[in-house]
Amino acid sequence: MKLMNAKGVRDFPPEEKIIRQEIVDTLRETFEEYGFNPLETPVIERYDLLSSKYAGGDEILKETFKFKDQGKRELGLRYDLTVPFARFVGMNPNMKMPFKRYQIGRVYRDGPIKLGRYREFWQCDVDVVGSKNMMADAELLLITSDVFKKLGLKVVIKINNRKILDGIMESAGVSKSKWNNAILSMDKLEKQGKNEVMKELKQKGISNDSIAKIFGMIQKKKTNKKTISNLKLFLKKGIGKEGLEEIEELLKYVKNVEFDPSLARGLAYYTGPVYEVFTKGIGSAITAGGRYDNMIGEFLGKGKYPATGISFGLELITDVMKSSAKKKSVTKVYVIPIKTPNESLKIAQELRKAGIKTDLDIVGKGISKNLDFANSQGIPYILFVGQKELAKKKVKLRDMKSGKERLISVKEAIKKLK
Amino acid sequence: MKLMNAKGVRDFPPEEKIIRQEIVDTLRETFEEYGFNPLETPVIERYDLLSSKYAGGDEILKETFKFKDQGKRELGLRYDLTVPFARFVGMNPNMKMPFKRYQIGRVYRDGPIKLGRYREFWQCDVDVVGSKNMMADAELLLITSDVFKKLGLKVVIKINNRKILDGIMESAGVSKSKWNNAILSMDKLEKQGKNEVMKELKQKGISNDSIAKIFGMIQKKKTNKKTISNLKLFLKKGIGKEGLEEIEELLKYVKNVEFDPSLARGLAYYTGPVYEVFTKGIGSAITAGGRYDNMIGEFLGKGKYPATGISFGLELITDVMKSSAKKKSVTKVYVIPIKTPNESLKIAQELRKAGIKTDLDIVGKGISKNLDFANSQGIPYILFVGQKELAKKKVKLRDMKSGKERLISVKEAIKKLK
Repeated sequence: MKLMNAKGVRDFPPEEKIIRQEIVDTLRETFEEYGFNPLETPVIERYDLLSSKYAGGDEILKETFKFKDQGKRELGLRYDLTVPFARFVGMNPNMKMPFKRYQIGRVYRDGPIKLGRYREFWQCDVDVVGSKNMMADAELLLITSDVFKKLGLKVVIKINNRKILDGIMESAGVSKSKWNNAILSMDKLEKQGKNEVMKELKQKGISNDSIAKIFGMIQKKKTNKKTISNLKLFLKKGIGKEGLEEIEELLKYVKNVEFDPSLARGLAYYTGPVYEVFTKGIGSAITAGGRYDNMIGEFLGKGKYPATGISFGLELITDVMKSSAKKKSVTKVYVIPIKTPNESLKIAQELRKAGIKTDLDIVGKGISKNLDFANSQGIPYILFVGQKELAKKKVKLRDMKSGKERLISVKEAIKKLK
Repeated sequence: MKLMNAKGVRDFPPEEKIIRQEIVDTLRETFEEYGFNPLETPVIERYDLLSSKYAGGDEILKETFKFKDQGKRELGLRYDLTVPFARFVGMNPNMKMPFKRYQIGRVYRDGPIKLGRYREFWQCDVDVVGSKNMMADAELLLITSDVFKKLGLKVVIKINNRKILDGIMESAGVSKSKWNNAILSMDKLEKQGKNEVMKELKQKGISNDSIAKIFGMIQKKKTNKKTISNLKLFLKKGIGKEGLEEIEELLKYVKNVEFDPSLARGLAYYTGPVYEVFTKGIGSAITAGGRYDNMIGEFLGKGKYPATGISFGLELITDVMKSSAKKKSVTKVYVIPIKTPNESLKIAQELRKAGIKTDLDIVGKGISKNLDFANSQGIPYILFVGQKELAKKKVKLRDMKSGKERLISVKEAIKKLK
């Protein structure tokens, strides 16, 4: 047997898992600061759920891992966290609204492997169900801004509104049956450029005049205010009004976001504000979302469930962070016993009790091998515990960066390391 | 379509996920305090790995979810975290030893559903590879003790050693070919009682004389010291000596554990110390492990990988904790805007920046509906933001438990809530 991973899935050794955990911890902390609560749903779902109307659709179903249990029930691995969330909402009719939940977990797609595309990857979703209010959308944008500030990542948060896009299509004289299709082309603007998108719109039967009008309306000006003014000039009277009001309300709550009337998002189910987050060096959005007031109700076949949510792309965010933050070990200090196993273990216990992440030679290596080990792991401090020093109630603390050593008490060492 | 979960898997709504997260956080924090680093491996593995010799064995393979990807490759869902860990070790030959890793994640068994048995459940494993030293085992026991102290759970940690069990069998005159089988019967002592186990041993062809000797040797006395002395009286000269020395060394490093020479653990691959943790009201061990010096090497077909590890049972620990700690929401304070959406959002932002978990009415409910909502979620504080109070630069903070209200500044509210 050759030892290898299944195709398209990965191991994350400590130096990668540590960064992933730091990002997930930041997300979780921020979500909870905004009063969102954690939800967990299983990785395995019934196939009839995953394949039902208004769920992920045919394209995603082709990429769904499918199998049977012992009882011959058809099952699948979840391809997103939204469909299971909708199921959960439907199964808990007495749930208090609004329901603010976050969920961080693995999802699966049995698709072709390309750069940055995997068969197992993580989604980090935060959603509110049960509020039509723009304050719900505002909170998601504030969360987004907080998260990237905490991660030290410069980003641009772009917002738009599906109702504005509809208004642009209507004002440009595009027939209603073509709106959705045209909007899907607009979504490619960032990646493929204006010329390609114009060509595609033409192929979809949009007239030159309409295309010119569309591109007149989606112009980004120097400020959000000016972008809105330009758009208002072109939009036919009353058309897209609701979308504009929503954008103006959102901009009142949230500063540092960019209104971009060309922003479309690929998915058909959005009904109001949409958001995408970009950072230097990565063409795709690293975080994205929007309002989907009809989807859950349609999916469940009953009830009204206005909802809005945003999904953080752990794989892409990790890729951006990786270069800066690679750490091989969580350990702060490595204790080297010099013929003092019992005393060293006791000292290690004191450090741990103080919350200091402490490793200890549990093999009985020599001093130089121990130094090599600590060095290879990037551990910043070493504590030597020798019999001579112990007799004086001291230990030797070495700063691995500067090479400086200090003979101090355990208490002082704890103070220094905290 | 009827909305339901796949058989044997569960949703965890916030009130359950919050406790699970608290337990997992405690485990993770403690593992890291001891210098263990996180590892992540995929849920999907190649079926030839899961089914290979020295992996989980036939019984477990019958319960393995099996399927194919688009390329017709045979895959399975992992049934434990140990086999993937062994694969990871084998695929990383240049790894620095000892390798101390922890891994917390979901595993799958397509077996019969009984009370407390699920098809998707979590394992929380902490293992060291590359150290034969008893200090490695000592650290695992210290971690175990710390974890349950932090969780506020009274437990008994029992230890034994496979070499001692072998020595007991040998001294009792059991023929070597029957040792493993007899030890498997001994493992049932806690659950089925002495009489049942004696009957089983008889059925396995162990003589009455041998059985009497075995039960003479495994007696637990009032102290570990006395248990050891009793055992030494019965053990034939030199037999089981190594196991006893290991136990005595362990007991030097770790106090509050109970040496129980009857403790066996069901799995065949243990080679040295074994540990089990019990708590009131639950018959099975809620945490267990031991040393397995040969398993990884045999599995990989090469090399020596002395290893020891312990696995915390999240499902059982959660069951014990549940009754005490059910919380519906992580939220500390709920902000109710009284015609002050914009100001309220700003105040909520201040609280969040201070790290206080803050929820906010984002629907625009009336005051009494908001109070009902906060009450139903068990949120301990409410902050009213009214125009009159704002004019005086004050807000009203209500303690939901005592019903007391105070008119204070936002700064004072933050101080109070922190």
